[in-house]
Parts: sequence; structure tokens; C-alpha cells
Amino acid sequence: MKLDDLYSELTLKTGAKLALIVLDGVGDIATAAQHGMTPLEAATTPNLDALVQQGCAQGRMIPVAPGITPGSGPGHLALFGYDPIETQVGRGVIEALGLGIELKAGDVAARANFCTLDNKGIVTDRRAGRIDTSVCMELCDVLSKKVKNIGDTEVLIRPGKGHRFVVVFRGKGFEGPLTDADPHREGLPIPTVEAVDPSSSKANKAAKLVAEFYATALPLLAQKKPANGFLMRGIAHQPEIPSFEHRYQLKPACIAVYPMYKGLAQLVGMAKIEGAETISEQFETYLAEHDNYDFFFIHYKYTDMHGEDGNFEAKKRAIEEFDAALPILLRKKPDVLVITGDHSTPCFMKGHSWHPQPVLLHSDCSGSDKLERFSETGANLGSLGVFEARFLMRYMQANARMFDKFGA
Amino acid sequence: MKLDDLYSELTLKTGAKLALIVLDGVGDIATAAQHGMTPLEAATTPNLDALVQQGCAQGRMIPVAPGITPGSGPGHLALFGYDPIETQVGRGVIEALGLGIELKAGDVAARANFCTLDNKGIVTDRRAGRIDTSVCMELCDVLSKKVKNIGDTEVLIRPGKGHRFVVVFRGKGFEGPLTDADPHREGLPIPTVEAVDPSSSKANKAAKLVAEFYATALPLLAQKKPANGFLMRGIAHQPEIPSFEHRYQLKPACIAVYPMYKGLAQLVGMAKIEGAETISEQFETYLAEHDNYDFFFIHYKYTDMHGEDGNFEAKKRAIEEFDAALPILLRKKPDVLVITGDHSTPCFMKGHSWHPQPVLLHSDCSGSDKLERFSETGANLGSLGVFEARFLMRYMQANARMFDKFGA
Repeated sequence: MKLDDLYSELTLKTGAKLALIVLDGVGDIATAAQHGMTPLEAATTPNLDALVQQGCAQGRMIPVAPGITPGSGPGHLALFGYDPIETQVGRGVIEALGLGIELKAGDVAARANFCTLDNKGIVTDRRAGRIDTSVCMELCDVLSKKVKNIGDTEVLIRPGKGHRFVVVFRGKGFEGPLTDADPHREGLPIPTVEAVDPSSSKANKAAKLVAEFYATALPLLAQKKPANGFLMRGIAHQPEIPSFEHRYQLKPACIAVYPMYKGLAQLVGMAKIEGAETISEQFETYLAEHDNYDFFFIHYKYTDMHGEDGNFEAKKRAIEEFDAALPILLRKKPDVLVITGDHSTPCFMKGHSWHPQPVLLHSDCSGSDKLERFSETGANLGSLGVFEARFLMRYMQANARMFDKFGA
Repeated sequence: MKLDDLYSELTLKTGAKLALIVLDGVGDIATAAQHGMTPLEAATTPNLDALVQQGCAQGRMIPVAPGITPGSGPGHLALFGYDPIETQVGRGVIEALGLGIELKAGDVAARANFCTLDNKGIVTDRRAGRIDTSVCMELCDVLSKKVKNIGDTEVLIRPGKGHRFVVVFRGKGFEGPLTDADPHREGLPIPTVEAVDPSSSKANKAAKLVAEFYATALPLLAQKKPANGFLMRGIAHQPEIPSFEHRYQLKPACIAVYPMYKGLAQLVGMAKIEGAETISEQFETYLAEHDNYDFFFIHYKYTDMHGEDGNFEAKKRAIEEFDAALPILLRKKPDVLVITGDHSTPCFMKGHSWHPQPVLLHSDCSGSDKLERFSETGANLGSLGVFEARFLMRYMQANARMFDKFGA
């Protein structure tokens, strides 16, 4: 018997309210340069401290597997309880979601970027001299106006930042993944894409579609400088993911600000509640929607953003801003409340990392690990131990008393 | 290579004595109502403390999988080192074991209970007004005397508490599991049972047998009030489980008081040593049988019982009574001694839970976690970490030096 089937069989509906607050990239490492403290340790967090002292279970979560640094996609899929290795989402899809494109089942999406080609079609600059976003927008506009369809297939072209853009093929009968239309270094021509699985007729059809797109679109850029070509990578379709509501018997809503996280929530079928811009407004939205959903995913971006910049003080302040807003959420305290990250983003590393992120779980039956604060070293001592992030949802369901007893 | 095969290949006999003391449901959670303490923390346990201070490894164990609350069956099968999801035992079998029926290979057992039927055969009360145990005994006696066999198959009928009883079909050529002869709510007739796997001819044969049993037994109750019918659930055969002795190369004995735990031990082929009623007597039995077996499973029920009642003081006292008796066991200290639970039974929850139970392992090579006491929060800091209960036996074997080195 598969473990997921056992969980399904034991699942009961209880009407409990669950909230998952993701402080993106909150986990960090202590270094001498940072006075031997992490931002969580250095931050002044009276509200979080009070919550911990009321009784919480703490632990640390391995986002994917030991040593693996996740992007936002796998990081969040694991938090949503999906195996992030089994459920891979192509980068084209993630990028499209990040630009706020609402993908439909069957869409094939690609990350693309403008490049410079010489007169023999050899890639001489993979990023076209890192053109401005405004130039990228103009070029996408040119392509969008001239290439709306290929046969029956609709083509959507959306600019991103700098030289980056996204292409979505919307139609029927094709699928990814395809090999990249990108030599991955200068001095070579743009390779023709192929189906990763040559026996898939749908993928072969998609490869033909991309070739036709190149044949139509490349000539439109021939006179542009320096962006007279483009590369496409991570060409894949939106995978079929069992819906969150079906999997957990919880009606879920996403309260996020950035498109990428709304997109990831949408992938698993969460409703998107729009409008909030700040964490206080996100918590106000939670209060307003409290009775309409069972599960709330609330995403806070700034911990990760300042970690990526290596800005310890700003990451610390972002945590303090979150803490200051926390009492708004607690006006209608969820039955099960989790505060964690999707991964660590240590300031020292200026990027995502594999270090297990700390996690805090509060419910009437979470018990108490008798810790004073929420921090990385505190979480090391907690009753949840070090565990895989994909099991967090199961602990949340258990605390919501959503599982019947297994066996007599 | 399967991990179990590797363990087998590495196993050596060493003549060590191992003891597994199960304080049923000992794990708990600290809540404000209980002064922020668990019963283990609140109890005065000088003997346990001394043992810990001599040097123990501590940790916490996930009984089945994250968030899953086990019944006694899966809880103990995991402690005995079997995968509790792979090795599922039907509720009929567990119930029969609980009533002290010694099942034989091939037996099919069902949980049953008396119910009330109207004149059209519709179930109007699934529990027949919760008749007294004495009435249940009378009715079982009526059935037992009239229905001893169905064809070649022997039928055993044994009363339980209140409206509950157990039916065992002893013969050849049939197997479970079957669907329930229970509509699971009032207002419907008793459904006819079917094989869960319709392609199993043995299960189809068992379904036919149950139908014949109904045809014979129901008329015998027609004039009884209010118990003029009965329902049957969890109809299954005793699964084939590889014997404990073969799996671990240890000759095992069970020193338990309650039938359920004797039955679970018997399922894996442990010898039952009868006679002891109190924990002191159980330890005396251990002393007397010390030279006759390699492995002793000693089960103590009262921690769970008081946890189920939500009686913190009584659970604490049960731990203290265990502690007071511990020196008897230590007169012949086992080479490897484990004290743990089969799951947690938090007083606050008045029932089993998923919270990892604390475990203590003492041997000459267990090392010391330098903890002062045995408790949930202490165990969080131990060298065993949080691990799946089914690996406990392997740690016990390792501490008994029963594993050869793997590889050069």
C-alpha cells in the first residue's frame, strides 16, 4: 500500500482552519561576520516569542533531499506536500507563472531570451548585451503582433526582465519536455529542439511547432541590434498535479503578492485572493476570508529578497516587520498555524541554499518543546526533528485531527 | 539489495539478552493545564534517572509515518521491527487476539456486534441499545451451541464487552479481506459480504461461508429483543508474518498481562509466559526465565489506560509504579535494555496520537547522551534523533553486537 493512499484512507473532514505562513528563504546560517547570529536570532520578535512560549513544536525541514538547494518551484511544491522530485515543473512553466500568465492544461511554455547572432547564425552573445527591459518589451511587441498563431496553435509572448521573455504555445495534442534551443555557450548555432522522449508523438509535434515558430519569428528580428535572435529553454507543459483540495480535503486559498507564488499555488488548484500588498494587508485579507476557506497559504517575499542581496540588516528588519503584523493574523488564530520558509537563503551565500529551514507548528495539541524563541538553533532541539518538507502538510492535518486512527 | 536482506546477511548470534519494555502510550505533550509538564517529566523516577545517568541513548520514534496515529496493532508491529503499513492485520484478527483466542494459520476472523432489526430486516440500532456484557454472553452461548460448524469449517463465537463479539472461521481454503456485513448506519439492511479482491477464489469462498453463517445464525435470534441481529466487520485472515526468531536470530518471549498484546506477540511467534499480573511480577518472571530466551517483550498497560482517561495524575503514578519495580529487572540487567512506548497517548487528547514516543536504549556500548532524565524534551536532544520505530530492533541488535561489519 502506498503511503499517500493510507493518508487518503484515514482523512476526515473536521472544519479546522489551517494557515501556512511562508517567510521565503527565512533560514540562515550564523557566521562571524554577522556576530555569530542568524537574522531570526538577531531580530526583535516579541509576538513570535509569545507564540513560541504558548507552546509550539519546532524542527527543521529538508526541502528536497540532503544537500539539494531548491528553486521556488520545488521548495513550494514540497511545502504543499508533493514530492518535489516526482512532481517536476518545467522552468518554462515556472517562468510563465512568474510573469503572471495563467496557464491552461496542455499549454507548453518556454523560458526565452534575446541573443546576438553573427551572419552565419552563430550565437556570439547569449544575452544580447543584457538589453534593457524596455527594449525587451518592444521586441516582444513586434513578435506578438506578427506571430499570434502557428496553424491552430495560439502563441503568447510576454516580456520579462532584461533580455528574458516567455513563450507559451496554447493548443491541443502536444506536450514537453523538449531539448533546449540554446547551445549553452557562445560560438555555436541555435540547436534544433527535439522531444526528450522520441517515442512521444505529442512531444515530436511540439518540437515541430517550435521549429515553425523559429522559422517565422527569427526573420522578424534580423535587422534588430544587438538582439537579432533568441534562445529557448526548459520547454515543457504544465504537469497534471492532483489538486490540493482533493489530496487533503481542505479548501485552499493563496494570499501572495508576487506572481510566481500565486502561480505555484494555482498549479495545485488554490484560489488566489488578490489585493493585498503588505504583510499586514495579507493578514487582513486572511481575516476577511477566514470563513470561506479551510487552508491559507500566505507568502512573504522580503526575507528571501534581502538574503539574496546579502543584506543581513534588511533581512532582520523584514522579519521584524512580519512580527509586528502577526497580531492581526492572531485575531482569528488558525487551529493549526505553521511559520517556516520554503528553503534557506543565507545572507552570507547571497542565494538559496540546502540548509534545512526552521519550522514552527502551533496548535492546541502541538505540545511544547519549551523553547523561548523561534530560531535555527532552537529548532534543532525541537520535537519535530529534521524531516522532509513534504511531510509538513501531514503534520498539519494531524494537528487538525484530520486523521482517523490507523489499525486497531 | 533489500535492506532486510542486508541485515539478515550481517546477523550473528552472540548470546546477548535483550529486553524491550513497552510502557503503552507513555509519550505525552506538555500543556499549560498540566503545568507545562508531561507525566514522564512530572513523575518521580529515581531508578530510571539512575539508569539514564549510567549512560543511555535517547531519541523519539515515529510509530508509522509522520502524522499517523497507530492502533496497538501497527504500534507493536513497528516495535517488533515489521513495516506496519506493509504488514497490516485485519481488525477481526486483532479483536480475536484481544479476546485471547489463539488464531491458527488460515483462520478468518471478524469483529461482530449485536444489533436491532425491524420486521423488514432494516437495521434500526447498530448496537442493540448497547446491551450488557451478560446479555452478550448469553446470546453468544445460544449461537455457539447451535452453530459449531458450517460444512467442514469450525465456527468459534466469543463474547466481548457490551454488544461486541468475535467470530472465527477455522478451516481450509479461504482468506480475507471481505467487505463488511454492516451498513455503517441505521436505516439500511445488512449488506451481503463480498471478496475485496473479486479475483480471489479463496475470498469468494469465505464470502459464501459468511452468507451461510448468516442464514443459519440470524433465525436463532429472531425472537430476542433488542438484539435480534448482528453485524460483522473487518473480516480477514491472519496474515503470514515472518517469524521474529527467524528474522532476528533471537528466541523471543512475551511477558504481558492483557490478551491483545499477548496476541500481537503470538502473531510474530513469540512464546507467551503466563502468570504475572503486576509489573513487579512481570519482572520476576523475567528473572525466572532469563536463561531460557534471548529477547523479552514486557508490556505495561496502565500508562495508556490513564492517558485514554485523560488522568494525568494516574498516568504519572503508573510511571512511578513502573519505576519502583525496575530494580527487580535490573538484578539481571539485560545486555540491551529499551524502555519506550508503542505510541503516545496524551492525557490532553484522551487517546492515541502521532506524536513521536520517547525511547531510551541502554547497553555497554549505547554511549551517553549526558541527559539527567528520560523525558520527551530530553529525548529530543538524544543521539538517536527522530526515527521510524521499525528500526528500533536493528539498534537493539547492533547494541547486542549482532551485526557483522558491512564491507571492508
